[in-house]
Amino acid sequence: MSLIMKKVKKTIKANVSPFKPKFIKNLIPSGLNFFSFHAGFKKKKNDLLILIFEKLVNVQCVYSLTSTPSAPIIWDKKNNQGKCKALIVNSGNANAHTGINGIKIINKYVLELTKRIKCKKNEILVSSTGVIGEIFDPSIIINSINKINKTKSVDLIEAAKTIMTTDTYPKTSIKNVKIQNTNINIYGFAKGSGMIQPNMGTMLVYIFIECLLNKNQLKKLIYQNIENSFNSISVDSDTSTSDTLMLFSTSNKKINLKSNKNFKKLSKAVFELMQNLAYQVIKDGEGISKLIEVHVVKAKSINQAKKIAFSVVNSPLVKSAIAGEDANWGRVIMAIGKSYEKINQNKIKVSFGKNTVCKNGQISRKINTKQLNRYMKQKIIKVNVDLGLG
Amino acid sequence: MSLIMKKVKKTIKANVSPFKPKFIKNLIPSGLNFFSFHAGFKKKKNDLLILIFEKLVNVQCVYSLTSTPSAPIIWDKKNNQGKCKALIVNSGNANAHTGINGIKIINKYVLELTKRIKCKKNEILVSSTGVIGEIFDPSIIINSINKINKTKSVDLIEAAKTIMTTDTYPKTSIKNVKIQNTNINIYGFAKGSGMIQPNMGTMLVYIFIECLLNKNQLKKLIYQNIENSFNSISVDSDTSTSDTLMLFSTSNKKINLKSNKNFKKLSKAVFELMQNLAYQVIKDGEGISKLIEVHVVKAKSINQAKKIAFSVVNSPLVKSAIAGEDANWGRVIMAIGKSYEKINQNKIKVSFGKNTVCKNGQISRKINTKQLNRYMKQKIIKVNVDLGLG
Repeated sequence: MSLIMKKVKKTIKANVSPFKPKFIKNLIPSGLNFFSFHAGFKKKKNDLLILIFEKLVNVQCVYSLTSTPSAPIIWDKKNNQGKCKALIVNSGNANAHTGINGIKIINKYVLELTKRIKCKKNEILVSSTGVIGEIFDPSIIINSINKINKTKSVDLIEAAKTIMTTDTYPKTSIKNVKIQNTNINIYGFAKGSGMIQPNMGTMLVYIFIECLLNKNQLKKLIYQNIENSFNSISVDSDTSTSDTLMLFSTSNKKINLKSNKNFKKLSKAVFELMQNLAYQVIKDGEGISKLIEVHVVKAKSINQAKKIAFSVVNSPLVKSAIAGEDANWGRVIMAIGKSYEKINQNKIKVSFGKNTVCKNGQISRKINTKQLNRYMKQKIIKVNVDLGLG
Repeated sequence: MSLIMKKVKKTIKANVSPFKPKFIKNLIPSGLNFFSFHAGFKKKKNDLLILIFEKLVNVQCVYSLTSTPSAPIIWDKKNNQGKCKALIVNSGNANAHTGINGIKIINKYVLELTKRIKCKKNEILVSSTGVIGEIFDPSIIINSINKINKTKSVDLIEAAKTIMTTDTYPKTSIKNVKIQNTNINIYGFAKGSGMIQPNMGTMLVYIFIECLLNKNQLKKLIYQNIENSFNSISVDSDTSTSDTLMLFSTSNKKINLKSNKNFKKLSKAVFELMQNLAYQVIKDGEGISKLIEVHVVKAKSINQAKKIAFSVVNSPLVKSAIAGEDANWGRVIMAIGKSYEKINQNKIKVSFGKNTVCKNGQISRKINTKQLNRYMKQKIIKVNVDLGLG
């Protein structure tokens, strides 16, 4: 169980997060083209990405569980049947809480693209990210659609840049896995880190696997891997109206996935890519100061571990103590308590890194204060909670 | 439905909150004595309150639902049978997460008091507030117990001062209610505002009603009134290990409470006192900047309203928008959504005070921006959410 939290602390004039990873330029997943435009949602910079697949591909999606989903989520869920020819993503306006009008707008620009690339409405997917509740002008997307023929396709990094809102760097990841002498590339790009910025929101993730996968295999790959990657990160405990993950099978390359071993190998690669993107997302909020990893072990169940881990990582008082480099383990105990889970308080052991601060339900008698204080100055703080149950 | 949240913002050198209420000095509820000591948990200032009732009184208590309760909560719940002769409260050390030793410590100093005032162990109640996890020295309480005979009793304000940790003013409240020509005084004092301070925690509340009430009547008074007072406030969404409310019947004065009308009258007075104390608690954190009241109406149920109201008021992004005097209603929509409640997004209406910002699931076309911006500069911001359901 590994949860990650980013303490938001303003770093003025830090244009790019110090955690910015190295990029490989000029990569485009095969079988598709990225078209990037400055449509006009933002004043400067590109803000519209149109992705067109050469052939119809298989896709499976997961969306935010919010009770107030954005129009693109409502639209996608209703229309898409697991096949995709194109994806339209804009930044700068989330098309969220825009009522029936928000849906009509999507219909307008999707219709325009279906005419241009000759496909069905339900073969197009849409995402939007940016301000919630603002009026959305579909004509600026339509204008860009009309320019597609004259536009050169861009690479993965440029695609990721187009969907950035307050991100300080584009988030991309590439994995290669060899299954029975067949090389399979997996490409992913993402944006955002939860709801952490004024007027902005959303996490969007798009992953392309260069082999043939059916609906069930795609679903399995999502549900096997999302829990411990994107569903285990937290920045500010707020949930966006637009969170979306889409997993595409972008090639007809066939591999034997009925073999459990092969599927596991592929799934592991997908997990590593998801985890890599999830880390990039949390490492790029507004002026990151610390990254907290909470590991809960010996719980009664995975659910209990997860509930307690999130209770700790989302506690404002735990966050502020760690931001202040204070090994205030009493707050960790408080946060475990406010999960209201059935535990045995006298069995709890808490450590910061390897520094045990309490065990058997009370303060440890062997705290090396100097070493502990040194540890608390680290950029990544591991909070280890052993519940002594499972 | 009214929830209140305090945005914590450091105001340096503000020794006393600007919300400090007026006090009436020299008041002591009849039938009891407060003894206040500087026992030594804190460097300066009194930190130990021993309350002794002249006769055995009826009492009912509620405690934090935390999975990691403090030793006093564990001890009280196990020992007390609804009768009370004395109450011992210390500040400066919470006696929380102190293992079996924490319980043994309480037994030691309680035993000392039983000898001095001739009562049973289970007729004493205990509370502690302060640092979690620190070793607790019972001898300093025992030393003070031995000085009781030589000590003068103090008033309600001094009692409240003794249990302060990071509070900037003592919290007391008095109500008078006339039932069938009988005047009944209700006195209350409290400390804390959730878990908002480094190393500190806890809300403690003690209420004394000067008439005869049995166990069931006391319980009823608590459960009728706690939900919309102490259970409807939030500062930082963290739950302390020590939250306790005790309701005492401190007189043999009999009133006819079988009459529904009379009981309602008494209950209303208790509610007003609880609400008054709850407001004092939230108005006294570390450098308050804004107070947010979230009113959710036309929900499917009280539970749904409460869940959504807490989701809004505890959202870090809603808090930071309001602290920044920004009418960012998109974040309110986001926070409603992250309750995961079944609602109809197209029926939501949100107003800041009387300024409607969205209705029918989208932005309102009649926003008076000047008036709205002026409203956002107020100290108390009312967020009104109409779900259009109930």
